[in-house]
Amino acid sequence: MTGPRDLTALFDPKTVAVLGASNDESKYGNWLSVQALRMVSHRTVHLVNRRGETILGQPSLRSLAEVDEPVELVVVTVPAHGFEQAVDDALNAGARAIVGVTAGFAELGDDGRALQERIVERVRAAGAVLLGPNCLGVLDSSTSLTLASNPLPPGRIALLSQSGNMALELSGFLAARGHGFSRFVSLGNQADLGAADLIRSCVDNTETDLIALYCEDFGDGRAFVAAATAAAEAGKPVVLLTVGGSEASIRGAQSHTGSLTSDSAVIDAACEAAGVYRVASPRQLANAAVTLLSYGAAPVHRVGVIADGGGHAGVASDVVEASGLSVPEFPADMSVALRARLTPSAGVRNPVDLAGAGEQDITSFVSVLDTVLSSPDIDSALVTGYFGGYGGYGDNLARGEIAAAAAMADVAHRHGKPVVVHTMHSDSEAAKVLADRGVPVFTAVEDAAGTLAILDRAAVPRVLPELPARAADPVPAAGYWDARELFRAAGVTFPEARLVDEVDEAVAAAERIGYPVVLKAMGLLHKSDSGGVALGLTGRDEVADAVRRMRERLNPSGFCVEGMADTSDGTELIVGVQRDPRFGPVAMVGLGGVFTEVLADVTFALAPVDAATARRLLENLRAAALLHGVRGRPPIDIDSAAAAIATISEVAAAHPEIAELEINPLLATPRGTLGLDARIVLGNH
Amino acid sequence: MTGPRDLTALFDPKTVAVLGASNDESKYGNWLSVQALRMVSHRTVHLVNRRGETILGQPSLRSLAEVDEPVELVVVTVPAHGFEQAVDDALNAGARAIVGVTAGFAELGDDGRALQERIVERVRAAGAVLLGPNCLGVLDSSTSLTLASNPLPPGRIALLSQSGNMALELSGFLAARGHGFSRFVSLGNQADLGAADLIRSCVDNTETDLIALYCEDFGDGRAFVAAATAAAEAGKPVVLLTVGGSEASIRGAQSHTGSLTSDSAVIDAACEAAGVYRVASPRQLANAAVTLLSYGAAPVHRVGVIADGGGHAGVASDVVEASGLSVPEFPADMSVALRARLTPSAGVRNPVDLAGAGEQDITSFVSVLDTVLSSPDIDSALVTGYFGGYGGYGDNLARGEIAAAAAMADVAHRHGKPVVVHTMHSDSEAAKVLADRGVPVFTAVEDAAGTLAILDRAAVPRVLPELPARAADPVPAAGYWDARELFRAAGVTFPEARLVDEVDEAVAAAERIGYPVVLKAMGLLHKSDSGGVALGLTGRDEVADAVRRMRERLNPSGFCVEGMADTSDGTELIVGVQRDPRFGPVAMVGLGGVFTEVLADVTFALAPVDAATARRLLENLRAAALLHGVRGRPPIDIDSAAAAIATISEVAAAHPEIAELEINPLLATPRGTLGLDARIVLGNH
Repeated sequence: MTGPRDLTALFDPKTVAVLGASNDESKYGNWLSVQALRMVSHRTVHLVNRRGETILGQPSLRSLAEVDEPVELVVVTVPAHGFEQAVDDALNAGARAIVGVTAGFAELGDDGRALQERIVERVRAAGAVLLGPNCLGVLDSSTSLTLASNPLPPGRIALLSQSGNMALELSGFLAARGHGFSRFVSLGNQADLGAADLIRSCVDNTETDLIALYCEDFGDGRAFVAAATAAAEAGKPVVLLTVGGSEASIRGAQSHTGSLTSDSAVIDAACEAAGVYRVASPRQLANAAVTLLSYGAAPVHRVGVIADGGGHAGVASDVVEASGLSVPEFPADMSVALRARLTPSAGVRNPVDLAGAGEQDITSFVSVLDTVLSSPDIDSALVTGYFGGYGGYGDNLARGEIAAAAAMADVAHRHGKPVVVHTMHSDSEAAKVLADRGVPVFTAVEDAAGTLAILDRAAVPRVLPELPARAADPVPAAGYWDARELFRAAGVTFPEARLVDEVDEAVAAAERIGYPVVLKAMGLLHKSDSGGVALGLTGRDEVADAVRRMRERLNPSGFCVEGMADTSDGTELIVGVQRDPRFGPVAMVGLGGVFTEVLADVTFALAPVDAATARRLLENLRAAALLHGVRGRPPIDIDSAAAAIATISEVAAAHPEIAELEINPLLATPRGTLGLDARIVLGNH
Repeated sequence: MTGPRDLTALFDPKTVAVLGASNDESKYGNWLSVQALRMVSHRTVHLVNRRGETILGQPSLRSLAEVDEPVELVVVTVPAHGFEQAVDDALNAGARAIVGVTAGFAELGDDGRALQERIVERVRAAGAVLLGPNCLGVLDSSTSLTLASNPLPPGRIALLSQSGNMALELSGFLAARGHGFSRFVSLGNQADLGAADLIRSCVDNTETDLIALYCEDFGDGRAFVAAATAAAEAGKPVVLLTVGGSEASIRGAQSHTGSLTSDSAVIDAACEAAGVYRVASPRQLANAAVTLLSYGAAPVHRVGVIADGGGHAGVASDVVEASGLSVPEFPADMSVALRARLTPSAGVRNPVDLAGAGEQDITSFVSVLDTVLSSPDIDSALVTGYFGGYGGYGDNLARGEIAAAAAMADVAHRHGKPVVVHTMHSDSEAAKVLADRGVPVFTAVEDAAGTLAILDRAAVPRVLPELPARAADPVPAAGYWDARELFRAAGVTFPEARLVDEVDEAVAAAERIGYPVVLKAMGLLHKSDSGGVALGLTGRDEVADAVRRMRERLNPSGFCVEGMADTSDGTELIVGVQRDPRFGPVAMVGLGGVFTEVLADVTFALAPVDAATARRLLENLRAAALLHGVRGRPPIDIDSAAAAIATISEVAAAHPEIAELEINPLLATPRGTLGLDARIVLGNH
């Protein structure tokens, strides 16, 4: 697939036919017919039933062949064994889009997948598109297209989902917050149209402000990243709920749609590249969507917390910081300004505790919020606790509270900084005013804080370095020397080395290189584990001895004599690239040794990475402080390490024949970066 | 305070007086009078107003002296300047319990704290008790005591809270789940009665099944732990919400009630010791309380996930595992049994995806749940997604679903394993049936999983090794040698060492000990940083040189010559004890070097710890795998390391004059454990 595909026939067809229309209320063919008939004032609708029964009081056709005009969109709900024929009929009838509701294909195994692929080939050859199969239909509020089993309220969110129940739950949470849908697309098996195509189509759709996606299989992962990046750049946030974060969900997905799940860390890397907001649950998705619709992509990390009561101030502060955000102490002048306005027992250093000021003067909330947001050191605010309940104290305070709510919303939008509200009184008039004016209101403080945290985690989309259009010449072989030469040619520095066969050659090489040297046996799968590496050889006798002993024990195909690097002030990194079936090459960076093995302290990014991203991979390690120098150690040369990482990732991107490659250790020192070992694994791709 | 105090007069007084009764509806004296008058059929109520006004249509007294009988409970709502006199009047009137609603004491600073302490002395001398001051009152449903500003629904939960708004929010969440309160106690400043006293009183209260606590200041932390342990042992879970998890909330608490907050890790250690369930928010507290009331303390770690739909199965599995729980693959025979009952596309390995079976036969939920819970490898179950929505498909399915809900509850209770339900249809009849029968129902899957995770984190309360009744003789001084001798006498092994002054003595000591040796300069604050430690001296000349150089540069008070430990196959630990102002000595264990500095990989327990707890502290380190041997290193002798940790903690407990002590590094090897450095800091206590 290159370039976006034309989905006009899918979202705004002039003519629609439902194949498999039925009066049986337990069947999709019935539900979809009911919905289709709601569109008759907008487009021509044909119901097709092979017995030609009257369906829902309307005459039906026995076959598509009876329609005397091109049918732009055909919905197929017939049983699986009739699906292939139905698609042929649809194409013959001129269909530009087919919605395959019928199930029983790739999700049941390889036979189903093969059939599905055969059908897709025919659809594509005809220049048409196929949604599904195994999908629940499609809606478009702006074109009054109602081709799914359930209606959904109209709104600004495009909901793309690979699960029907998940879509229903998502729409429940969103509708409860007063939001609706510009489009709903059930992705089904994504045999032809995938998440990437549908995201692209929403970028161009003026009715869509935000794209909510539930997806288990990303299909062409790079196309997904490109489409999501385009959406982010168009100011349309993509919020993603997916699975694969646990072995259990991967087990489940295997038996569900036959989906190929990607490692959760790889999906995170893809989301980071594309500026996608990843969430963990339907409620989180709804909360994030509502907040993004109000404020767009905005920094939120440094949160001002405002409460009327110390308990709420404290609990909210803890919850905000536990969510990964910061509640920084205010600059002194700001605390002084707040103190002047509040009682002596008020908290004014962040969190703000109004300490009763809300009750005395409800406009305190407005002025305090204004002051807090005016600080260049504060990105967002969380108002927590009692607000919304003052109205219960009498009519005056009730009117004042509603006015304060409106004013708080104005303040938030004027500063252009996200404000979220947690209140015990979420059913209050004041809470409604806030929500109506675009200030998200939450009944639990962890939802308010968690929503800010989701906004905080998403990065600005970066231009992803592209995979090379043409692969480099394949490597001749996958031995240690081949790997080393490959990386060296690309620009990674290694200690001086010579390939040798005999004792005399080895000694001569060592003398030329200078002691101490390292001797490595060639042609072994795991040279370190099998004793094929001798470190720190300091003279000709030691070199000769080492060669003789290795030859005797391991019978290697040859030897490599290398200069021995000074590791005393360096840090060993591990840098590798593996291929994800969906997202392609993925770079992994970690601190070597126990940090990798015991703590799994590693970070990921889609490869190739540029030096800036490589640097970020290093900085995002939990133990990154090691690189900056601790306990008297000097800091490493991070620029050099980042450049080496970028180079390694570029090698991987240029060599699709390499399934997996690694430099481990990559020695990062204050004076530069050295590869001390290298490994490549050839594989199918 | 020793032994539980008699709180009969607080919770079930025969006579009550309200001092400061008022007709002004903006005053506590009014709200409490309104509530007090609701009790007149249960006990005598006197309203006291210094002008003798008619209050709420009732005659009032000008002073307590006018009451011609002892007044068991006096509520004081007068302004702060009149509080001391009011307490005296109450004691003179025979009060056994005083509820101080009046604010303006310790929360305003040191003067207020001094006044508060003076008043408490008088109350205690009279053998009475004081709740507050700065509290909102007290309720007891079983004795019809209504002495708080808001009424609360009756139930089985005792709510003890240091914040009024937090109590209101908690009660809102709990009431929404159909739960109410045996007691509500507003803790206020805890000047006399503290959380520990009130927990103790609830252990003996037959109407209380669970204790919900919001607390910022734990007062006597050890008494709190003992009381909470007693509650856990009586089968009454204690669920705690507190603050102090962030610098921000600590800032906030300082300005709130003048509370002294403990480090969050210390509170965690206290909760672990006492089997307290710690939560992070009011909603979490309510969710945990509801679930504990249904199932009590029960293992939940290995969760069976059951959904009708792959999306819900996958998302729930991810959320459960992200919460720290496990969704283990079922044993093969169980998957076979489930497969026989479900469709070919169903997931049967955990998660279970009914894949439409719910709609075909709603009793599938019951039989699958029964099968899953019958496994000895599964502790609990999470049913997630659509259940509750099948009723919408017609009357038959609606009846079936309600029956299934009841049967699911029966299955859960029969197996005695916690089952929680997340449903998109939480307002459905089926959901209500589940909730009514004690199966907690959640509208968001993360709440269901998070609640199980809270239950999973709490430990069975352990008998906390007691602090020694008598302190040991104080250490003579706090130098390195004193510290070393203190630990050595207690049983910690150190390398052989001699204290010396002169070069000749040092050489003689080294010869006796055997090379290599370490030379340490004595009498310096930071001997390592200032160059006062010379490692690996291998002969008499090196020793002599080192002595001369250190003397010249540092002019130390003497030298210590020590055997040099073989660190090649050991792991360096850091073990220390600090004193928390509330919880007393707290042991800290970590892996040394970069693990402590860069990763803050440390664990805590209230000291003294026994060997089992010490072992757990080691096992709970993130990098614990290092101790078990990785990358060819042999495992350390964990029993020996644990014994050393226990000994160090006992030294701290026996020496209250030591503010802080530490052995760092404590070298743990496969052959035993050696202290390589020791430090004590004397301080006030």
